[in-house]
Amino acid sequence: MKLSHTLIIVGCLSTATVSTYAAWEALPETAPVPANNPQTNDKEELGKVLFFDPRLSSSGTISCNSCHNVMAGGDDNRPNSIGVKNQHGGRGAPTVWNAAFHSVQFWDGRAASLEEQAKGPVTNPIEMGMKDWDAVVKLLKEIPGYAPLFKAAFTEKDPITADNAVKAIAAYERTLITPNTPYDRYVNGDHAALSEQQVKGMQTFEEVGCSSCHSGMNFSGPKMEMGSGFFMKFPTYPAKELESKYEFSKDLGRNEVTKQDADKNFWRIPTLRNIALTAPYFHNGKVTTLEEAVKVMGKLQLNKDLSEEQVQNLVAFLNALTGEFPPQTMPRLPATPGQTLMVEEQK
Amino acid sequence: MKLSHTLIIVGCLSTATVSTYAAWEALPETAPVPANNPQTNDKEELGKVLFFDPRLSSSGTISCNSCHNVMAGGDDNRPNSIGVKNQHGGRGAPTVWNAAFHSVQFWDGRAASLEEQAKGPVTNPIEMGMKDWDAVVKLLKEIPGYAPLFKAAFTEKDPITADNAVKAIAAYERTLITPNTPYDRYVNGDHAALSEQQVKGMQTFEEVGCSSCHSGMNFSGPKMEMGSGFFMKFPTYPAKELESKYEFSKDLGRNEVTKQDADKNFWRIPTLRNIALTAPYFHNGKVTTLEEAVKVMGKLQLNKDLSEEQVQNLVAFLNALTGEFPPQTMPRLPATPGQTLMVEEQK
Repeated sequence: MKLSHTLIIVGCLSTATVSTYAAWEALPETAPVPANNPQTNDKEELGKVLFFDPRLSSSGTISCNSCHNVMAGGDDNRPNSIGVKNQHGGRGAPTVWNAAFHSVQFWDGRAASLEEQAKGPVTNPIEMGMKDWDAVVKLLKEIPGYAPLFKAAFTEKDPITADNAVKAIAAYERTLITPNTPYDRYVNGDHAALSEQQVKGMQTFEEVGCSSCHSGMNFSGPKMEMGSGFFMKFPTYPAKELESKYEFSKDLGRNEVTKQDADKNFWRIPTLRNIALTAPYFHNGKVTTLEEAVKVMGKLQLNKDLSEEQVQNLVAFLNALTGEFPPQTMPRLPATPGQTLMVEEQK
Repeated sequence: MKLSHTLIIVGCLSTATVSTYAAWEALPETAPVPANNPQTNDKEELGKVLFFDPRLSSSGTISCNSCHNVMAGGDDNRPNSIGVKNQHGGRGAPTVWNAAFHSVQFWDGRAASLEEQAKGPVTNPIEMGMKDWDAVVKLLKEIPGYAPLFKAAFTEKDPITADNAVKAIAAYERTLITPNTPYDRYVNGDHAALSEQQVKGMQTFEEVGCSSCHSGMNFSGPKMEMGSGFFMKFPTYPAKELESKYEFSKDLGRNEVTKQDADKNFWRIPTLRNIALTAPYFHNGKVTTLEEAVKVMGKLQLNKDLSEEQVQNLVAFLNALTGEFPPQTMPRLPATPGQTLMVEEQK
């Protein structure tokens, strides 16, 4: 486990202390960037426009932002998302905030990069419903204002391509970072940043074993090469009454990607940053409160009945993972003067 | 007809001239404001948050902006809009840009103000689908971050009310003004702002009679007291082949509000500002191009078969009504930490 930024807390001003866990890390200001997709302002700006453009859906009503709302916690606060024709997905939308720190994307880690992830929903028939990326590229070429945006962002002679579109979206997503949580300020030395209860929750987080999976700067596992995921079985310790209530095991998770028996009910470790903003919880969004999610995790992953005090302290700590959201300007969506491309699928 | 700002064009640098029509007016920088809802920054900011908050719909997926997209031309470029449960409305979404200059709202003018208009879609069962405004107010009170926003914007002790919510939305909408079109710059004296073809189109606009209805600063009729609409029959000169193609007469328009025979197929005169951005056209969105819309208007409203040159010149002029869109910051939607309110209507 290679850590790029390690901070050892040996004591704090609070009466509680977080003593031994050596890997509390603050979130960096920038996310890892792949060599073949360097960040530029033009590319980020194009990516933002694409991210907000509902014309990238068959109905013209659903953009990336519809389910991954950057004006909120980066998701839609729904148990599952609603795609074109009122189709409901089987899993909740993961937050786009700090997604750039995940080494794989989607709940089941089936995309090795943000670029690869961005290819999925646009042509998923129950999400944005475009026929294929050829249709998307055709549409982008029919919107005159996209040509100069792609030309500014990319060097090819004919830059409007699927690859460049997802590169731009990924570049925008790499700007969606929420640093400076109370937790980050605390590990950076501001011991007043956390309340006493939050520090107790931080201790509990370590002691009961949450941090064995939710480790690292993004609380989503150790730093790994991009494309190599960090997975865990959920539930690890099945409990009948919780299963009948929440049906966590129904979805086989990682197994649906690999078809390996060993991957049944395995899931990528999701970030806990901004977790207070992204209810409901778990892959199927069946748990509506953070408090219940903490209890469920204690039971199913740690085989522990957490005390009421532990639960409250953990919830307090998790609330200290809500970050600062950078102010953003709204994009202007390029026009198709005098015509509309949204003529199909009226009903 | 009282005009607050009249400009007489007696000549221009172009070879074409717009000579006699005395009422070419530029768009003012500010919109009319009702005495009982003065503009304040706090109110505008709250209104923007509400305008973008999809939790104001029963599914948690549809905000005002979903159909009145301010990142685009203020509508959704669809023939009709899609509400909760994939329900399709019968009329197209009118643009929210410069709506503040209309003396009545909706295609049929059934709302006397932006405030009254804003009450409609939220509780319309096929639009945002909230049960009633009591349910909306209850929801707003359950989102802790709304309390300080309402308190900053209003003076009442208990400011989270339906009336204040729509006042805030209306205040935000009164900031959605797109001045400085090439047309505005032209009538303000910059005679190079329009091309020769556009000036010809401006002449044609006057000569053939477009300006008899689409007059005034907003091209939506003369300045009138807020609440008093300016309506016209459409089609005025019915044409069988156009009717069978576009079914304009099916929707009785103003008659559905007043139940008066005399109001059958009467409609509010819509603004032509940013008309190039808001295809498809007419109340039912059946006409997909501006060119065809101009031909249809010539035939059905002026009883004229416009020549190809007239049509092209008019389209060129209408393209000169696309304004400057003020840069806007994205709102932050207040959170419900550790829980979600989007638990109903999962399917």
